[in-house]
Amino acid sequence: MELLDAYAQVLLKVGLGLKPGQKVLLQAPLEALELSRALVRTAYQEGSRLVVSFLNDSLATRLRYEFAPRDSFEETTAWLDQAVLQALRDEDYAFLRITGQDPEYLAGIDPQLIARAQQAQSRTEANQKLRQLISGFQINWLIAAAATPSWARRLFPELPSEEATQRLWQAIFRTTRADLPDPIGAWKEHIAALEARREHLNQRRYSALHFSGPGTELTVGLPAQHRWVAAQTKARNGALFTANIPTEEVFTAPQADGVEGYARSTRPLSLAGQLIEGLEVRFQKGEATEIKAQRGQEILEELLKTDPGARRLGEVALVAASNPVAREGLLFRNTLFDENAASHLAFGQAYPDTLSLEETSEEALKARGGNASRIHIDWMIGGPEVAVDGLLPDGRQEPLMRGGEWVI
Amino acid sequence: MELLDAYAQVLLKVGLGLKPGQKVLLQAPLEALELSRALVRTAYQEGSRLVVSFLNDSLATRLRYEFAPRDSFEETTAWLDQAVLQALRDEDYAFLRITGQDPEYLAGIDPQLIARAQQAQSRTEANQKLRQLISGFQINWLIAAAATPSWARRLFPELPSEEATQRLWQAIFRTTRADLPDPIGAWKEHIAALEARREHLNQRRYSALHFSGPGTELTVGLPAQHRWVAAQTKARNGALFTANIPTEEVFTAPQADGVEGYARSTRPLSLAGQLIEGLEVRFQKGEATEIKAQRGQEILEELLKTDPGARRLGEVALVAASNPVAREGLLFRNTLFDENAASHLAFGQAYPDTLSLEETSEEALKARGGNASRIHIDWMIGGPEVAVDGLLPDGRQEPLMRGGEWVI
Repeated sequence: MELLDAYAQVLLKVGLGLKPGQKVLLQAPLEALELSRALVRTAYQEGSRLVVSFLNDSLATRLRYEFAPRDSFEETTAWLDQAVLQALRDEDYAFLRITGQDPEYLAGIDPQLIARAQQAQSRTEANQKLRQLISGFQINWLIAAAATPSWARRLFPELPSEEATQRLWQAIFRTTRADLPDPIGAWKEHIAALEARREHLNQRRYSALHFSGPGTELTVGLPAQHRWVAAQTKARNGALFTANIPTEEVFTAPQADGVEGYARSTRPLSLAGQLIEGLEVRFQKGEATEIKAQRGQEILEELLKTDPGARRLGEVALVAASNPVAREGLLFRNTLFDENAASHLAFGQAYPDTLSLEETSEEALKARGGNASRIHIDWMIGGPEVAVDGLLPDGRQEPLMRGGEWVI
Repeated sequence: MELLDAYAQVLLKVGLGLKPGQKVLLQAPLEALELSRALVRTAYQEGSRLVVSFLNDSLATRLRYEFAPRDSFEETTAWLDQAVLQALRDEDYAFLRITGQDPEYLAGIDPQLIARAQQAQSRTEANQKLRQLISGFQINWLIAAAATPSWARRLFPELPSEEATQRLWQAIFRTTRADLPDPIGAWKEHIAALEARREHLNQRRYSALHFSGPGTELTVGLPAQHRWVAAQTKARNGALFTANIPTEEVFTAPQADGVEGYARSTRPLSLAGQLIEGLEVRFQKGEATEIKAQRGQEILEELLKTDPGARRLGEVALVAASNPVAREGLLFRNTLFDENAASHLAFGQAYPDTLSLEETSEEALKARGGNASRIHIDWMIGGPEVAVDGLLPDGRQEPLMRGGEWVI
């Protein structure tokens, strides 16, 4: 499939920013086999000296929750995280993660078990170092997606499986510009546009953002040393990479204790294999003090118990409603897409870069007013009905987005 | 599929000998997904606290040989072997490897590249320790098979893919006793019979074996402290396991410098994704001095360059022609089955157990007259036309097998 090859080129060149000869660690759902193979072949053709692929079976994960002894969910695979850490940190592998599994592959599973397993894993030293390596942009990495039958059937339940998957592939190719005559060129233009937006915001030095819309009146304070980040990043290993394909956001770090008001989600959120819909959150002094959801409240509540930083925000991102992902008009139920279709917040860990930090320690993040946590959960609050304003240190307020579009 | 569940039970209980709560590391070709899932579910139902599965895509391996830079085949994944070693040795995982990939998945690939990659990997400290752990029976492990479409089509090229795969499954279920009313009971009986054979041979204290048949006149010296091994083994981690399902062999260690004569293979051999047929080998003082094959000679020659021990024998195994695997009448092109259908030899590493050793070091093996190598390659020399005799230290000769059957 020609489009799949074009897509693989975008992922490796624009997304991962593969360095000459660089080795690749590829993680993908096994349903994404066709894309995995296209990536393996293309990476070798581009000169990669070794591609190691892990194919994940989300049904095997589900079988664990269904059948494993109830007291076994503290078991971890720290030894495997340690290996991945070694490959990425010591052997200069690039890290490519493909998503696309069924957004509800753990539907009906006890959220406490899911949270217990995730928390046990994230407590291990290896997992912590791995997260620091990744969120600290110390290496080049990429999250991108493959259309899979189990995901597609959630989006197009009325279509036969094959047709649904093809529809989802088309949406992916369109939103990632892989279907354009010159995808790499289109990405260069797009990255330049996002970077111009980023530069503008960085020059304004807002002290806070304000979101206003149905169910949302939220002020998000910004630390003095906040920095807007978008699209391309220079990793400490020297690679120039774009960590998400697609990416339509500019984002920065909220003041961990400076968020006040309430917000309502504008898109569903697939979290740990379960779906959260109709989320409403109230914040006081940065902390989420009240959380309600029409669906999936328990999994979110459980994961927000991970650590004290889990109930505070680590990211605020602005996304225009007219971008290709939003224009696709699809609720993807996959964060990679939905977060690029609407302005969003994230509970948990802040990116050190958004606090002008190279250091990734909890202490360093907190010293700059940022948030630290073992989780990072994006949720969408933007859309055509949500207005966004920037607040300047002198108290003036500037409109940033109206009707979902930039007005700057 | 009920038979698949019975088969999973045999693999976990008889094969792996899963200890209460023991964790499992499962490696399988991705075509073996259905069996993998049955194993994951059954292991959890049997009380395993965690099952980690790696699904291998042999096409991705092939893509490496086709497209990776020609100077990149010294690259290794020692970091991954190190992780597996840690899981098995330090975290008491059991190790279950499923075979069943296309026996010729690397057909047409330059054997020098294959050998270079395998030799680089086997030179790493992690890989060496892992092989010692496994060949030294320090943990419980199992090699078993799944019928896959790509394997089945090599055996039944005239049948539609689905039917060919079903035929191969039936052969696997029959030869592993999974289709019997009480598979576990049948295995207990079978193991007891193999162990009686083993005890008899151990009491005879032969100084050599002699194989005689078309193209074969071979004397295989046995070290003074050789020990016959069969079926069940007690691992140093306490588990009672059967490392191969099926298993029909009794085997021991040849004297590394005591093999004289010549032998002709009686079955094809799938080695590193390529097929070897019509193999003829001449031995002098234990070393293979002449090697010819009608097909696949180069891959064997390349792998026998791995180290000095690679051209000497590390195993001699006796298998009756009337056992269920042989009776199946199929050339499986998968060593697990073919080596259990015919008496065989193996180039390379000896099992410490067959030299009455708990220690796995090269020095210890050699001190007892055994062979050490980074490879272990089984090849079949037995069959109805091959007579086997035991030679006693006093020079007397006893018939062991005639017409492929035991005569003791």
